[in-house]
Amino acid sequence: MLRSILISALIAVASLGAARADDLPSWTDGPVKQAVVDFVTTATTEGSPGWIAPADRIATFDNDGTLWAEQPMYFQAMFVMDRVRALAPDHPEWTTTQPFKAVLDGDMHALAEAGQKGLMELVAATHSGMTADEFEAIVKDWIATARHPKLERPYTSAIYAPMVELLTYLRANGFETWIVSGGGIDFMRPWVESAYGIPPQQVVGSQIAESYQVIDGKPQMVRESGIFFVDDGPGKPVGIHRHIGKRPVLAVGNSDGDYQMLEYVTAAEGPRLGLILHHTDAAREFAYDRESHIGKLDKALTDAPEKGWVVIDMARDWKTVFPPAP
Amino acid sequence: MLRSILISALIAVASLGAARADDLPSWTDGPVKQAVVDFVTTATTEGSPGWIAPADRIATFDNDGTLWAEQPMYFQAMFVMDRVRALAPDHPEWTTTQPFKAVLDGDMHALAEAGQKGLMELVAATHSGMTADEFEAIVKDWIATARHPKLERPYTSAIYAPMVELLTYLRANGFETWIVSGGGIDFMRPWVESAYGIPPQQVVGSQIAESYQVIDGKPQMVRESGIFFVDDGPGKPVGIHRHIGKRPVLAVGNSDGDYQMLEYVTAAEGPRLGLILHHTDAAREFAYDRESHIGKLDKALTDAPEKGWVVIDMARDWKTVFPPAP
Ligand SMILES: [Ca+2]
Ligand SMILES: [Ca+2]
Repeated sequence: MLRSILISALIAVASLGAARADDLPSWTDGPVKQAVVDFVTTATTEGSPGWIAPADRIATFDNDGTLWAEQPMYFQAMFVMDRVRALAPDHPEWTTTQPFKAVLDGDMHALAEAGQKGLMELVAATHSGMTADEFEAIVKDWIATARHPKLERPYTSAIYAPMVELLTYLRANGFETWIVSGGGIDFMRPWVESAYGIPPQQVVGSQIAESYQVIDGKPQMVRESGIFFVDDGPGKPVGIHRHIGKRPVLAVGNSDGDYQMLEYVTAAEGPRLGLILHHTDAAREFAYDRESHIGKLDKALTDAPEKGWVVIDMARDWKTVFPPAP
Repeated sequence: MLRSILISALIAVASLGAARADDLPSWTDGPVKQAVVDFVTTATTEGSPGWIAPADRIATFDNDGTLWAEQPMYFQAMFVMDRVRALAPDHPEWTTTQPFKAVLDGDMHALAEAGQKGLMELVAATHSGMTADEFEAIVKDWIATARHPKLERPYTSAIYAPMVELLTYLRANGFETWIVSGGGIDFMRPWVESAYGIPPQQVVGSQIAESYQVIDGKPQMVRESGIFFVDDGPGKPVGIHRHIGKRPVLAVGNSDGDYQMLEYVTAAEGPRLGLILHHTDAAREFAYDRESHIGKLDKALTDAPEKGWVVIDMARDWKTVFPPAP
């Protein structure tokens, strides 16, 4: 009897150890990986103080710089510029009109000078004036063919292998995994299911105005030129509340734009985990934080110890960064 | 060999018949029930022309008058009036100010005269100015204690038993079931999971403005006085696109406010089903359609044959209407 209990216990411990080693193979053993595994293990252990009811196992992930790279500029900005170039033959006036001229000339200085207003014009010209189905087809075509200039691979291979493992590990433990991104919701939906295993209905993002219209007898969603919702900073908790309607228990981000999401998720009672990806790896990816124009990580990095947020040091905590390029 | 094939076939047919009889026991056998069962059976039969990939099995249900009753007025309006009465001691000015005076006096004529503007004032006074957590607690308390005046039962027992069976049957066949309602999203979320088995993240509804605020060190969603989104009529396809991001294959409604949702869902290619609940049952529930101020069903009823929408005749097609009252 005692012997069989001992054997059962040994098998349980052994399988637990094996599960840990297998579930996150791209993560270096150490305090960060341990914090993640401990959180998930206690969350799924009934009777433990860290147990979380299955219905409350909601995890929210930022996308740019958290699930895929974001340098030298947001990939959606790459998409905007590619679209301007593709549409230019139908818009001869763009060769003399800013901010379009700047894109066509590759003049980053003039583009920067066009500022927020210029960016909005580019977004309107490339993201609206078509049906949702047409936009989906455009994004699918782009994501299938475009390549990251520095990383020399398709954008869907510029995703982080350790984060895909984490998503899979969480789902295997009953968590629902969501994207909560400042990026466009309809820019992400066509490819996130195959890249991350996250279906379109679990994506929260920025949205442009839309209207329902019956065109030639066919009901369509039409994309209008106006911003409906910006899912960034304090907008992230609002987007979470609108789409999910309950407070997640785990949030993962990489910049000050995730500050409020991390705060909203981790300041409530019960077991909570906040993770911040710190880009420290110039050799394999990029190194940037407090001074970066893209993905600036300053206040959240300063406040992480006090808030109990766990900082993932990419260079230290990840054995690999990207999946093998196809 | 032939004999064993025959036996297998007989068992298959018998178990199919048994499954059908068991899954929708509150539905009368006939063409409507058959249309539902046929749709689900072919949707889940690989190789059949009506097969639907599991990821695309999305079903959207209106709530008021489709999943629960809506007469003599929307239940959320009952909630508004109960809240005005509960808050009145803190608002002595309401005894002399419309539309509040009308509610306190039970003066339905004055209330009707206050119109849309008056209604918005009542909604603002009862649905905003508190945190999301506080509002959730208010709704939970109301739904646990309030009773329908005519049906003499809690509102959560004024739900339709055949629709709960249909939701369960769909989920058992791999469908994701969503609510898409003109009602307030945060008014529904606290109780729809226990009533219908639908989690808060699968509810689409009208929304008021919200903001993220840290109050006394606690991160909160604060409900503001302004309408952010009206999920009715042409708003329903927009709400569907925003929250789900793909076109459902099945839609169920009961009024002209569901016209565009039914159209959006059923006019696309592939297997589609639109269902309309026609309230024909004055004896067990209510009978109303083209002339009703609540849940007016006119154009959708006229166009149903041409659009291929299946009309559920409550008196004919449902053996029971409500679950047993507690
Ligand atoms: Ca980011
Ligand atoms: Ca209705």
